[in-house]
Amino acid sequence: MDSSKHTDSALIVNEGIPQPPAINPKAARILKKRPGRDLSVSALLQGIRAGNIPILAQAITLVESTLEKDREKARELVSACLPYAGNSIRIGITGVPGVGKSTFIETFGKHLTAAGHKLAVLAIDPSSGKSKGSILGDKTRMETLANDPRAFIRPSPSGGSLGGVARKTRESVILCEAAGFDTLFIETVGVGQSETVVHSMTDFFLLLMLTGAGDGLQGIKRGIMEMSDLLVIHKADGNNVAKALQAQSLYQGALQLFPPSPSGWKPLALTASSLEKTGMDNIYQTIQEYMELTKDNGFFNNQRAEQSVHWMRESIDDHLLSCFYNNPLVKNTLPQVEKKVQEGTLDSFRAASELLDLL
Amino acid sequence: MDSSKHTDSALIVNEGIPQPPAINPKAARILKKRPGRDLSVSALLQGIRAGNIPILAQAITLVESTLEKDREKARELVSACLPYAGNSIRIGITGVPGVGKSTFIETFGKHLTAAGHKLAVLAIDPSSGKSKGSILGDKTRMETLANDPRAFIRPSPSGGSLGGVARKTRESVILCEAAGFDTLFIETVGVGQSETVVHSMTDFFLLLMLTGAGDGLQGIKRGIMEMSDLLVIHKADGNNVAKALQAQSLYQGALQLFPPSPSGWKPLALTASSLEKTGMDNIYQTIQEYMELTKDNGFFNNQRAEQSVHWMRESIDDHLLSCFYNNPLVKNTLPQVEKKVQEGTLDSFRAASELLDLL
Repeated sequence: MDSSKHTDSALIVNEGIPQPPAINPKAARILKKRPGRDLSVSALLQGIRAGNIPILAQAITLVESTLEKDREKARELVSACLPYAGNSIRIGITGVPGVGKSTFIETFGKHLTAAGHKLAVLAIDPSSGKSKGSILGDKTRMETLANDPRAFIRPSPSGGSLGGVARKTRESVILCEAAGFDTLFIETVGVGQSETVVHSMTDFFLLLMLTGAGDGLQGIKRGIMEMSDLLVIHKADGNNVAKALQAQSLYQGALQLFPPSPSGWKPLALTASSLEKTGMDNIYQTIQEYMELTKDNGFFNNQRAEQSVHWMRESIDDHLLSCFYNNPLVKNTLPQVEKKVQEGTLDSFRAASELLDLL
Repeated sequence: MDSSKHTDSALIVNEGIPQPPAINPKAARILKKRPGRDLSVSALLQGIRAGNIPILAQAITLVESTLEKDREKARELVSACLPYAGNSIRIGITGVPGVGKSTFIETFGKHLTAAGHKLAVLAIDPSSGKSKGSILGDKTRMETLANDPRAFIRPSPSGGSLGGVARKTRESVILCEAAGFDTLFIETVGVGQSETVVHSMTDFFLLLMLTGAGDGLQGIKRGIMEMSDLLVIHKADGNNVAKALQAQSLYQGALQLFPPSPSGWKPLALTASSLEKTGMDNIYQTIQEYMELTKDNGFFNNQRAEQSVHWMRESIDDHLLSCFYNNPLVKNTLPQVEKKVQEGTLDSFRAASELLDLL
C-alpha cells in the first residue's frame, strides 16, 4: 500500500461544514425517481466521490444485497472505489451490553466532528437479523450524531452468517472512505465472536469497560483484552470517579504484563464520561499518537496489507465451506454425526471423513 | 460423553510400577520380526490396551503416516481405542524458548509418576519437520523422565501443516489414553499459532513464564495469557526467588481483571523451580482442584464434547481448503493475486471471487 495515500487527517480540521455536493443532473434525476441501486456503477462512484450521502447509502444497500446480479455490480463498485479508499483511521469499538457504547460513540463522535473530522459509524451485529429493533435502533440511540452533517451512521447489515455480515461491512468501509470519511467507527455488540472479526478489519481497537473487576466483562471473548490498544473505563462520573481512577490504575498495571504488541504500541487505560463529556480529548490524542507511531514504523500499512489478504482468504474459505455445509445431504447427516462425536462414540476424524465421503 | 468413564485419577496412585504387559504370542512374534505397522488393528488394540509401549509407539507411527492405506487403518484403530479413551487429564504446556519447558516437564513429570500417575508427553511443533534435531531432541532433554517406566515421551510429529500435525497429536492422545496413561502433557514451542491448537485439545492450560514484565513474552500469541488456567513463574530459585514472588503477586492481581472463564475457574499464578524441585506439589494440587471444580459443574465434559466437534469441523475444513489451495492452477495464480491485494490495487472480495472462478 502506498503510504502517501494516507494524508494527515489533521489537515482537514476546521474546513467547515461541507456543502451538499454536486452530482451530475442525470444521476440526480434517477435518484429522485428510483433507488440508487438503479444507478450505473460510474454514477454511483461519482456520487460517492462527491460525498453524496443518499447515494452512499444506496451503494451500501447494493453491497448488502445477496442477489447475484447485485453482487457483481457491487464488486465492480468496490473495485472502482478502491483507489480512493484507505485514507482513514478505522477504529473498532466494543464492550459488554450496559457499558454505554452508544452514548460513548455519540459523545466521542461529536468531539471528532467538532474537530473537523468526517465520521462514519458502522456496526457488526450478526444477531441483528433476528431482532429487527436493533437495526433501526442505532440512529435513535445516537440522535445528535445522526443529525450531524459530518457524520454518517449505518446500522449493522442484517441476516446471514458472521462471515457474510463481515464481508458487507468491510466493503462498506471502502465505500465510506471513498466518500471522504476520514474516521470510521466499527461497533460490535461485544459478546461472542464478532470482536475478533472487527479486530481483524480495524487499525485501532478500543475496549469500553466499567469499573469493578473482571465480572463486568462477562461474555467478552477471552483474549480480546490482550488485543486491545486502549481500554476506556467508561461512566467515570459522579460518585464513580474515584472507582474509575482506581480501575484505570489497576488495568494500566495489568497491561504492562501482557505480551508486547507487534505494533510496538504500549496499550493504555484511560477514563471517560459521556455524561460529563470528559476524557474525550485524551482518547483522541492517544489515537493520534498510535497513528503516528504505527505509520512511522510501518506497522499501520503492513497490518492493512495483512488484513486485506486475511479477508481474501476468509472469503474464499467461507465460500468453499458453505458449499459443503449447505449441501442437502450434509445438512441432513451432520446433526446425527455431530451428536455421536459429542457423546464420544465416534471419533472426530472418522466423523469428518464420513461426512466428506458423502459428496 | 459419559462422566462415569472418568474415574478419579487418584485411585491409581501407588499401584506400583506396571509389569511388562502380556500380549498374544502371535503379535509378539510379528512385532519381533517387523514394525507394528504390519500388525492387525485388533492386535494393535490388544497391545495398546495391555499398555505395551513398543506397540503404542508403532501405533502412533501408523497414525502419523500420510499414506492412504495407513490412514484407513489408523482411523479404524483410533475408533477401536475410542471406548477406552478419555479417562485422563490433558494438560497443555507452553512458554517462550528459554523459559525451561523441558526441565519443567521433566521435574513436574517425575513428581506425577512418583505419585503413581502414568504420564504421556506429546508435543506440537510444526517447525520440527525442518530441523530434524528438535524431533530427536525431546528424549535427550528429558533423560530421567525418558527412563521412567511410568512415562512415555513422544516427540512432535514432523512435517505438514499445523492442521496435519494437530490431527496426528489428537489421535495419539486417544491411543495413549487407551494404553492407560491418565495424565497427558501436550507441549508447544510457544510461539505463533500452535498454542491455540494445543489450547483447543487440552483440559487445562499452563503458561510457563519468567520473572520480569511482558517483554519476556515476546512472540507468545496475544490472547493466550487470558486463556491460561495457570501461570507458573519458573526458575524461582537462588537470587531469583524474591523477583519471582513479586511477579507472582503482580500476575495474580492482573488475572483478577481478566474476563471470567466460562469454566468458573479463577486462574492462578504460582512460582516453581525445576532446579530446586520446588512448587511442584502446589501445581499438582491446583490441577486437582481444577479437575474437581470442572467435573462437578459439568464444564469438563462439555468442553471435551465441544472440542471433539471442533476437531471434526477443523478436519473437514482442512480437507476442503487444501483441495482448493493445492490445485495447480490456484497455486500458480495465488501469489500474484495476493500481491495485488497486499498493494491495495485489488480488493479482497474481488480477488477471492477471481480465484474461485479458476475452478
